[in-house]
Amino acid sequence: MKIRLFLFMATLFVMQNVCGEDKFGQQKERWLQIAQENMPTLQKRVVEPLRVVEAVKDEKVFQGWTYKTSSFRLEDFYKTNFSSLRSITLDFGEHLTGYCTIRLKTTDRTWDAPTRLKMTFGEVPAEMNTPFDPFPGGLSRAWMQDETVEFMEVDMDREITLPRRLSMRYLKIELLGTSSGYNFAIDKLYFTAQSSAGEVQTSLLPTSPKMFRDINEVALSTLRECMQTVFEDGPKRDHRLWIGDLYLQYLANRYSFRNYQLTKRCLYLFAGLATEKGILICNLFELPKPHAQPSTYLVPYHLLYIATLLEYYRDSHDRETALDLWPLCKVQMEDALSFVENDIFNTSKRPAWLFFDWREGLDVNACMQACTIDALSNTYALAQELGKQDEVKEYPALIRRMKAAAKKEMYDKKSGLILSGGNKQVSVLSQAWMIRAGVLNQKEGQRALRAALSHPEVVMPGTPYGTHYLVEAMLLCGMNEEAKAYVEDYWGGMVKKGADTFWEAYDPQDDFLSPYHFAPLNSYCHAWSCTPIYFIHKYPELFQK
Amino acid sequence: MKIRLFLFMATLFVMQNVCGEDKFGQQKERWLQIAQENMPTLQKRVVEPLRVVEAVKDEKVFQGWTYKTSSFRLEDFYKTNFSSLRSITLDFGEHLTGYCTIRLKTTDRTWDAPTRLKMTFGEVPAEMNTPFDPFPGGLSRAWMQDETVEFMEVDMDREITLPRRLSMRYLKIELLGTSSGYNFAIDKLYFTAQSSAGEVQTSLLPTSPKMFRDINEVALSTLRECMQTVFEDGPKRDHRLWIGDLYLQYLANRYSFRNYQLTKRCLYLFAGLATEKGILICNLFELPKPHAQPSTYLVPYHLLYIATLLEYYRDSHDRETALDLWPLCKVQMEDALSFVENDIFNTSKRPAWLFFDWREGLDVNACMQACTIDALSNTYALAQELGKQDEVKEYPALIRRMKAAAKKEMYDKKSGLILSGGNKQVSVLSQAWMIRAGVLNQKEGQRALRAALSHPEVVMPGTPYGTHYLVEAMLLCGMNEEAKAYVEDYWGGMVKKGADTFWEAYDPQDDFLSPYHFAPLNSYCHAWSCTPIYFIHKYPELFQK
Repeated sequence: MKIRLFLFMATLFVMQNVCGEDKFGQQKERWLQIAQENMPTLQKRVVEPLRVVEAVKDEKVFQGWTYKTSSFRLEDFYKTNFSSLRSITLDFGEHLTGYCTIRLKTTDRTWDAPTRLKMTFGEVPAEMNTPFDPFPGGLSRAWMQDETVEFMEVDMDREITLPRRLSMRYLKIELLGTSSGYNFAIDKLYFTAQSSAGEVQTSLLPTSPKMFRDINEVALSTLRECMQTVFEDGPKRDHRLWIGDLYLQYLANRYSFRNYQLTKRCLYLFAGLATEKGILICNLFELPKPHAQPSTYLVPYHLLYIATLLEYYRDSHDRETALDLWPLCKVQMEDALSFVENDIFNTSKRPAWLFFDWREGLDVNACMQACTIDALSNTYALAQELGKQDEVKEYPALIRRMKAAAKKEMYDKKSGLILSGGNKQVSVLSQAWMIRAGVLNQKEGQRALRAALSHPEVVMPGTPYGTHYLVEAMLLCGMNEEAKAYVEDYWGGMVKKGADTFWEAYDPQDDFLSPYHFAPLNSYCHAWSCTPIYFIHKYPELFQK
Repeated sequence: MKIRLFLFMATLFVMQNVCGEDKFGQQKERWLQIAQENMPTLQKRVVEPLRVVEAVKDEKVFQGWTYKTSSFRLEDFYKTNFSSLRSITLDFGEHLTGYCTIRLKTTDRTWDAPTRLKMTFGEVPAEMNTPFDPFPGGLSRAWMQDETVEFMEVDMDREITLPRRLSMRYLKIELLGTSSGYNFAIDKLYFTAQSSAGEVQTSLLPTSPKMFRDINEVALSTLRECMQTVFEDGPKRDHRLWIGDLYLQYLANRYSFRNYQLTKRCLYLFAGLATEKGILICNLFELPKPHAQPSTYLVPYHLLYIATLLEYYRDSHDRETALDLWPLCKVQMEDALSFVENDIFNTSKRPAWLFFDWREGLDVNACMQACTIDALSNTYALAQELGKQDEVKEYPALIRRMKAAAKKEMYDKKSGLILSGGNKQVSVLSQAWMIRAGVLNQKEGQRALRAALSHPEVVMPGTPYGTHYLVEAMLLCGMNEEAKAYVEDYWGGMVKKGADTFWEAYDPQDDFLSPYHFAPLNSYCHAWSCTPIYFIHKYPELFQK
């Protein structure tokens, strides 16, 4: 028996080495299973269009297009032969994510030829009124939601649900083909909206100013729409889960839906799909089965996983999950540290994509240094919570050294600015991340941010994602009124421009800013834009009084 | 008890009269049930594309377009990233009716955006190479088989079957949208062809000339493709059953597949959907449940139902069906006779559509007179077979009177021509139908047909449907060699022009003849064009030696 046991153990040892080492091999299966066990139930509701609308070109409104209520009434639309209308645009009154159901009712004679409709779904008016072709966008043309729908004889007089999950407020229906041998009306049309968010668990103080109430509402809609079977990036485009978005969504979720189950699912999905070395991937897809987007190695996002787990643990007290996933946090941290030379994160060591914002030309050297320091602090904090300090006992000293190196190499005492990279770029995000990381103290932070914001060549954030870190930095270094004003100007600016949900990209000076060179391709309901919920609730004295 | 029975009977009587009289009310339900009980099994086979082709413009070929084999091999196609190809045309080598299945295999990285393909299916090369828009066709644009197909993440790496039933030999696939973030190849593509025809039960004599063998083969393919769950009009367009097509298909079926079950189903479908007065409708749809095309009252087709039942009964000896449906034949005949005044069918009595061919301007007065006489003969013949002569004992005298009236009113002794309508139109079909009806004897028929065919202003048939009656008339009046030459020229002309199946419309002088003002909209596999099977087998001495 002893000999057989020895042989068995030896075989196991050999197999483990021959098959390559998957650091978390067996655990990953279990992690994926936990993720699947935490699959949320999608709550559904049926929404009908509110009104028939007509597009109005108006240079004074967001992106130059708006809708006015048509004199043609909705109740008449349901009775009118569509071949006489040929085109109609409907407004559902709010942003919705889900499935569209339509019924063509024969009004005269019998179906004798297929009918083809173009059904264009959009989140904002300009998206509905800008020709898509020839397509200038930098992502797939098929993200545009102009669906060609064909009705054969069997599809008449019954409800047809389009197979694609859609994200929209407006729907334009155009007739592409029908027979003169019969007539039909669209006598039923509704949208089955879905979300896993659940009920809002928080409320604002009665003293809350209207603008912040409005911002909070739009942010809640944004988050609700993005909460599906994962915290999605954006329900129109990119039906997937990104770590960076998850982190910000989690912060907003804490102060709204408090859906810890969905958070747990997302944390475990990332864990279950880690590489053989245990490195996370920055984004993943759920269908047909959970899988990672390969070769999307994105260190700043990997490090934000640690922050997310820390925040989740502090709120949920789910010690089991935190302990289960703790080893992964160490792997991410160690991987990031492998690029640190002489206490500086050396971004030239690999050509990796180091994302902090979509703004073109942003130099990320300073951000990456700060992000690494921040992650070291978060990892150590988590270790303390879990009694694992011994495993990372060198981190406090390393944090001190990296802060000092940042100060020495990147801080310009004269101007009080963090300068990033060989060209000494002045960007708002360099200052913001250094404040978050504690490299700059409150006084230095205020000076740096103010200097950057008034610098003639400053690189501003181009998205609500980057802007979140700016506002956070303001609040961290005591620029409370500026932070409040910034939220009011920036997110309030979107509200004033008619946003139902907050946008992926927003530059108050440029309505057409697009990371993909085509504004209609932008997501107008984007997870990373929902963080006003976090600010408004975390600082009630500031935003609610 | 007696009083209650009386009241019950009285109520029944009142209900019957209040609710209107449906002459065959209860029988119709039973008839529809018999139709459904005779639903055929569709035989399926999987067909893969034969070759990659390239379109060649060539004024000397049918409609100016042909395909040549591409130097790009099919086996390479399955391995090549489709984003580098962007477009491809495949030839399946034969006409197919059924469903297309496609698989997109990820070749590089992972799906990260939907892919949209345009998949255009066509029966003939010019259809594939003529722009559809702006659409000049007279029927629904959606009959054109250019499908927009969208692949979401869940659709990758698995077989997707397009929901629409298609009719085609060629398939062009074009890339409408994909992401640069991944790559895919179309690594599987096949067509599941279906037909209810079964095996061919007949064969040609070894002496049969090649041209008639070829014509027979193409006709067999045509009929096979049109035999689905009914004898369809054409599998690409008009997914329905017409009486006129059924009659000709039945004649061809007798000499090929001998599928009496499908014929029985079709006869019962028409019966079950007759109007309250028992008038047939000329065409019907099967889905979502069998229903008539209302207001398509077409007397010549109603009368051909009688001929179909007669032929079916003579072949199948299915006396039960013939007796069951006999009363309907009488209703059709009586309805047609209601338009007869002074032994002439008065076409001006109602603005009905009286179809004998798609040729524009064809005057149908003579055809309609002949068609009525022919139907009287068929009805009387059926009555004799079923021992029902007493019910129609006045028909022989009526036939004689109507023949005489036709001779008197429509026959020009000098030219030997039947002249139709107020403008005394000379058409081939007027002569042909008068020969079929026995108004003209063999000698008169020969003279009339020859005079018509050489007449400078003759109206020729524009379709194989009309041409069938011309050839039939030639054979009836002993113009055997002319009939043979006509089949060889007309249907053989289509074979020489590359037909895989016979076309809905064909004029040897005009490749672009279209009843709908757009040749690509024509059906290139059309039931009513399959009758060479009938001629070749019925007259073996003529066609097979």
